[in-house]
Amino acid sequence: MDTLYWQKGSLQVLDQTVLPEKEVYRTCTAWQEVRDAIAVLAVRGAPAIGVAAAYGMVLAGKALVRERPSLTAAEFLQAFHAVGKQLEQARPTAVNLHWAIARLVSMADTLSAQPVSCIVAAIETEACRIQAEDLEINRAMSRFGAEELLKQDKPLTILTHCNAGALATAGIGTALGVIRALHAKGRLLRVYADETRPLLQGARLTVTELMADHIPVTLITDNMAAWVMKTKGVDAVIVGADRIAANGDTANKIGTYGVSILAKEHGIPFYVAAPLSTFDLTLASGADIPIEERNADEVRTVRGTPIALPATAVFNPAFDVTPHTHIQAVFTEKGVIRTPDTAHIDSFFRSHH
Amino acid sequence: MDTLYWQKGSLQVLDQTVLPEKEVYRTCTAWQEVRDAIAVLAVRGAPAIGVAAAYGMVLAGKALVRERPSLTAAEFLQAFHAVGKQLEQARPTAVNLHWAIARLVSMADTLSAQPVSCIVAAIETEACRIQAEDLEINRAMSRFGAEELLKQDKPLTILTHCNAGALATAGIGTALGVIRALHAKGRLLRVYADETRPLLQGARLTVTELMADHIPVTLITDNMAAWVMKTKGVDAVIVGADRIAANGDTANKIGTYGVSILAKEHGIPFYVAAPLSTFDLTLASGADIPIEERNADEVRTVRGTPIALPATAVFNPAFDVTPHTHIQAVFTEKGVIRTPDTAHIDSFFRSHH
Repeated sequence: MDTLYWQKGSLQVLDQTVLPEKEVYRTCTAWQEVRDAIAVLAVRGAPAIGVAAAYGMVLAGKALVRERPSLTAAEFLQAFHAVGKQLEQARPTAVNLHWAIARLVSMADTLSAQPVSCIVAAIETEACRIQAEDLEINRAMSRFGAEELLKQDKPLTILTHCNAGALATAGIGTALGVIRALHAKGRLLRVYADETRPLLQGARLTVTELMADHIPVTLITDNMAAWVMKTKGVDAVIVGADRIAANGDTANKIGTYGVSILAKEHGIPFYVAAPLSTFDLTLASGADIPIEERNADEVRTVRGTPIALPATAVFNPAFDVTPHTHIQAVFTEKGVIRTPDTAHIDSFFRSHH
Repeated sequence: MDTLYWQKGSLQVLDQTVLPEKEVYRTCTAWQEVRDAIAVLAVRGAPAIGVAAAYGMVLAGKALVRERPSLTAAEFLQAFHAVGKQLEQARPTAVNLHWAIARLVSMADTLSAQPVSCIVAAIETEACRIQAEDLEINRAMSRFGAEELLKQDKPLTILTHCNAGALATAGIGTALGVIRALHAKGRLLRVYADETRPLLQGARLTVTELMADHIPVTLITDNMAAWVMKTKGVDAVIVGADRIAANGDTANKIGTYGVSILAKEHGIPFYVAAPLSTFDLTLASGADIPIEERNADEVRTVRGTPIALPATAVFNPAFDVTPHTHIQAVFTEKGVIRTPDTAHIDSFFRSHH
């Protein structure tokens, strides 16, 4: 079950909205279909959104050549930029979407002296590289994260929120990658998975992924996390991230901020697993991260079943921001950033870029 | 829409499992039907469970007389005690169930010199009194609670969890009674209602109750509570209770403990609204309160719709315990218990009993 794959000039995206019951792929042959797949959360998870967007840009490049064969390289690049700006609108919070598009656009700009066909080929090559890199990034991050956690010298009970797994990436996952690495070392006791309302990525995706790998997992409703921490000996919380500001403040799925407070109250270390592409060093703090608000019906219903009166007023932020002071460390593909504040993040980036 | 009513020798119980779409009453003509209605949460909320159990005992008394007319008073009382012990098993956490049954049984015991028919009549009278008292208790508690909250000199934004409303009592509710009193004074800005998974009493009951009274309410998923506190200016949290130990530790719907931690983190006062019958002074602390665990399918599904694979492992505690140190005050029908610890609770009971 691949999150997405590139085949014969189309992007196949696993429709995660119908998991775990159905395994259906959406075929995207135009960049607008990729945008829509991202917007409806058929593909979700910051790293996977980045990879999907990269292929969306490839589809846009190919369409430009097909539909307007007489374009000069300069005209092509201008149109390519314009598509990038539109595709970026699909979701506002995850910075990896912006990052992947910016990477392709900048790369294409350096090729302005080449024929358009060569530019398009280079864009496709770069998109494939982003996907391959994501797999490697997951592996390296999981190794670093597991090493850090193995310092607790016993089998660990881990709590996670939402899905930062294979289904959120092109590889083994970020938070779930670390969990898989712990399991492979025989040092994982059990995972508690928050169901993660409103869209239930924990219940539908995380539990399904972990059960498929025979990793012991127990599903809880989001409001049980505090009681599980109090009574079940949780040793660490690990989550993914959608955008990390220069000071370490981290946007992630709604509920993450609350979990970080509960972890602090119980003296449980709280970790973020995220590739460096999730950092947005242009933002001084989390206060600058745009928070997507989604349709009220996501809260008023569960998978199509009404749970409240149709006229019910709703607040539905898709993300929240966890202050860096609640985060013990960020696991990245280049190593562990402990006490992730402005100074430590700055020095980490200086020494690894 | 009455939570329950006693009519022509049967107890009519509003089936809260199918709210808000359907308004259906279950007719209970035998105490076993009352037990079942409590067990499946057709009637729920600690005070309402107490009232329902009282009428269940009336049905048991009448059935004993009907089926075994030759019973002596002593034999009747022995059989009546035995039913009480069984009815108590319906749900383990809410102490009001125990309290109501114990009250009827002790009262009946004092009448052992009277004819059985008179004992049965007295039981019915006492059950009716418990219901009437609950209405009065709600009103008094709401007045005390509102007075305390009006010290914050502005319209208030209140967050609540689960349903401690009219549907949880025989009156205007405990936590929602206080909210109704604030609204009546023009001092309520808005209520944020946690949906309260797994059984969604917040989404289905609290929102419906408040909308019916034109009280401004916004529904959120449980995991949004922290972000709402951070961004929406919540002035107070008010919840109900299922059992309060002698030291003030409070069992209430799962998730309440987490909300109390979030309130503490944001410097928001956290209040419990509960009748004195919710106190169990035989328990030194919350560690002694039995916590009901319910069927795993409550978590794996939402109103019949699957949200996870059928084989998913689940932890499903129906309640958790909030330490008294997180509770600013308890609103009761006799007044406000501030800093509710062993000493303050003890002195409050001494001065009011």
